[in-house]
Amino acid sequence: MRVGILGGGQLGRMLALAGYPLGLEFRLLDPVPDACGGQVAELMVGAMDDTYALERFCNGLDVVTLEWENVPVEAAKFIAERVPVYPPPQALEASQDRLVEKSMFARLGIETAPFLAVDGPANLAPAVAQMGTPAVLKTRRLGYDGKGQWLLREDKDAEGVAPFVVVPCILEGFVRFERELSILAVRSTTGETRFYPLVENHHREGILRVSYAPAPHVSKKLQSQAEDIAARVLDELGYVGLLAIELFQVDDRLLANEMAPRVHNSGHWSIEGAVTSQFENHVRAVAGLPLGSTEIVASSAMVNLIGDHPPLETMLALPGAHVHFYGKEPRAGRKIGHVTFVDDDESKLRKSVEHLQGLIQNHDVSYTARKTS
Amino acid sequence: MRVGILGGGQLGRMLALAGYPLGLEFRLLDPVPDACGGQVAELMVGAMDDTYALERFCNGLDVVTLEWENVPVEAAKFIAERVPVYPPPQALEASQDRLVEKSMFARLGIETAPFLAVDGPANLAPAVAQMGTPAVLKTRRLGYDGKGQWLLREDKDAEGVAPFVVVPCILEGFVRFERELSILAVRSTTGETRFYPLVENHHREGILRVSYAPAPHVSKKLQSQAEDIAARVLDELGYVGLLAIELFQVDDRLLANEMAPRVHNSGHWSIEGAVTSQFENHVRAVAGLPLGSTEIVASSAMVNLIGDHPPLETMLALPGAHVHFYGKEPRAGRKIGHVTFVDDDESKLRKSVEHLQGLIQNHDVSYTARKTS
Repeated sequence: MRVGILGGGQLGRMLALAGYPLGLEFRLLDPVPDACGGQVAELMVGAMDDTYALERFCNGLDVVTLEWENVPVEAAKFIAERVPVYPPPQALEASQDRLVEKSMFARLGIETAPFLAVDGPANLAPAVAQMGTPAVLKTRRLGYDGKGQWLLREDKDAEGVAPFVVVPCILEGFVRFERELSILAVRSTTGETRFYPLVENHHREGILRVSYAPAPHVSKKLQSQAEDIAARVLDELGYVGLLAIELFQVDDRLLANEMAPRVHNSGHWSIEGAVTSQFENHVRAVAGLPLGSTEIVASSAMVNLIGDHPPLETMLALPGAHVHFYGKEPRAGRKIGHVTFVDDDESKLRKSVEHLQGLIQNHDVSYTARKTS
Repeated sequence: MRVGILGGGQLGRMLALAGYPLGLEFRLLDPVPDACGGQVAELMVGAMDDTYALERFCNGLDVVTLEWENVPVEAAKFIAERVPVYPPPQALEASQDRLVEKSMFARLGIETAPFLAVDGPANLAPAVAQMGTPAVLKTRRLGYDGKGQWLLREDKDAEGVAPFVVVPCILEGFVRFERELSILAVRSTTGETRFYPLVENHHREGILRVSYAPAPHVSKKLQSQAEDIAARVLDELGYVGLLAIELFQVDDRLLANEMAPRVHNSGHWSIEGAVTSQFENHVRAVAGLPLGSTEIVASSAMVNLIGDHPPLETMLALPGAHVHFYGKEPRAGRKIGHVTFVDDDESKLRKSVEHLQGLIQNHDVSYTARKTS
């Protein structure tokens, strides 16, 4: 069976590495010739709005999936006329526009932060007046890792931000949440569905830094609330593959923040920490194979390597460290790898994370010093 | 870091898959253009006695290792003049000739079955008379999976077998062992050494069928006896990489049967069953990186898929089944994949193995029926 993946970054790379043991073969499509997935699978270089490239890409494939949520919906539809595409184009449509996404959540009875459409600079002040502050203005499309977001602390901040509303935006009420969680769900072409345990995520500068899985102190009720949210979205979208939904926890309520129609950074721990990784289960789902158990092996912590990393030898010398490099050149703000620790003892897990974070900070300092000296 | 692997079969394939997350790149050399490692890594097609091919192969590599124990020693030496080769050529020399190997074991004080050199047809009868029967005649070189071996039940069997002694052979006393075990050891370029727990191996028709790890009912004394055997061989050979030694258990004694200077079929369970797989630790060892923990995650059982396999969907539907296909076409007697189960409950593990073996037998029957109908 030959699987095509739209996008050739680290997610495509890890999908291929998870699928090879099942005897599957992979072809990636990416506009960038040095996309890191090309180190481990066939990489076709082409633009996703180039129908000639898409036509060639599809040739001989049994199924196509994606690792980038901003694949043009038109490209997915073009391919879907030739080869099955999972997740389906309507899942892309729903996730690429924050207003469409939040409206879908609301329609499905899933709680979110309050939100208002802001279609142009003139709409901002009235929206802020209606919503109150603090609030967050976000572009409806193409934001990631905190990019395309502005925090409005007071009503008068609207004035300074208004010039950015050159593209359709959404204004969201600021949620005083206790923590950020994510639920990973997977559904196969046969309808078989599984959920991973809730994950606790820690961001800094808008980028995910650390995930703990399972999230500590999660009641059965909270887990089933999260699974119910995910199940509604899976059903609504006729979804196939892995779906991630980022959630805010406020007391014992969960508010949906956003979804990703693909394998997700907050699921990387599952390579070692779950019986079946999110990558293998996504591949199984789109290939119509039975899903694997989503149970944990033990508790896990995943630390992202952003921009640069301590020496490989230093990290591998940490007891139980599973290092994953993506084959990408270091560059500020870039996700170039991650490290997972698996341990039944959660206090040991936290110590391992702190230890590694110390190494990362020390390394960053010396790196910066080298650069500026 | 670019790693070359001599041999492009399933072991090379799994080494590459284990090394990619460390950011390593791989180039395989194999005489066969459709060697299955070529599906996941750069494959150079060339003969191992072709110095021009070896020269091109080495170009740009940082280290070379092997996945086939019959790599010509001359090829390994030729490469070693250009790029470090691990395990070192002397390890190949010792393992490629059963007489040299057994003599080394004896020299190191490691117990083996009694053995005698049989250099030609005329030497056989005297050797059998001296050794007694039952005994096993084996070619000194190039035997694998039970090929090149003849069981002599009685002295008079020597006559029928004598014509096979056209190549140097070794006659070994027949050992009435309780079970077959293997010890996997790994040593890095820095000298750091780790041992996996003893594995219990079940063969049929000379081919490994099932491994249990850790082997049940292993005393600390037996484990340390095995580690001591492996440590002596590692030291003797200045070994770097993963070394497997097959052992016979007779009461509380261990007899060394043979060694493999490479990752080993009886270590495949470690992909899911150990904190660090034999493949990752071999790669770490030859790359001079710190070794990972060889502790188990839980008990494991590995079942080989030989010749053909039940449908993938059927196997993946078995709870906890980790399926590994090698991307090879089914063919009688060929190792085309394996399945690993990991479970703390050993009786569940045995039931999973029996269940899968039932599927394999049923599938074989139907396969045969289809072929002959």
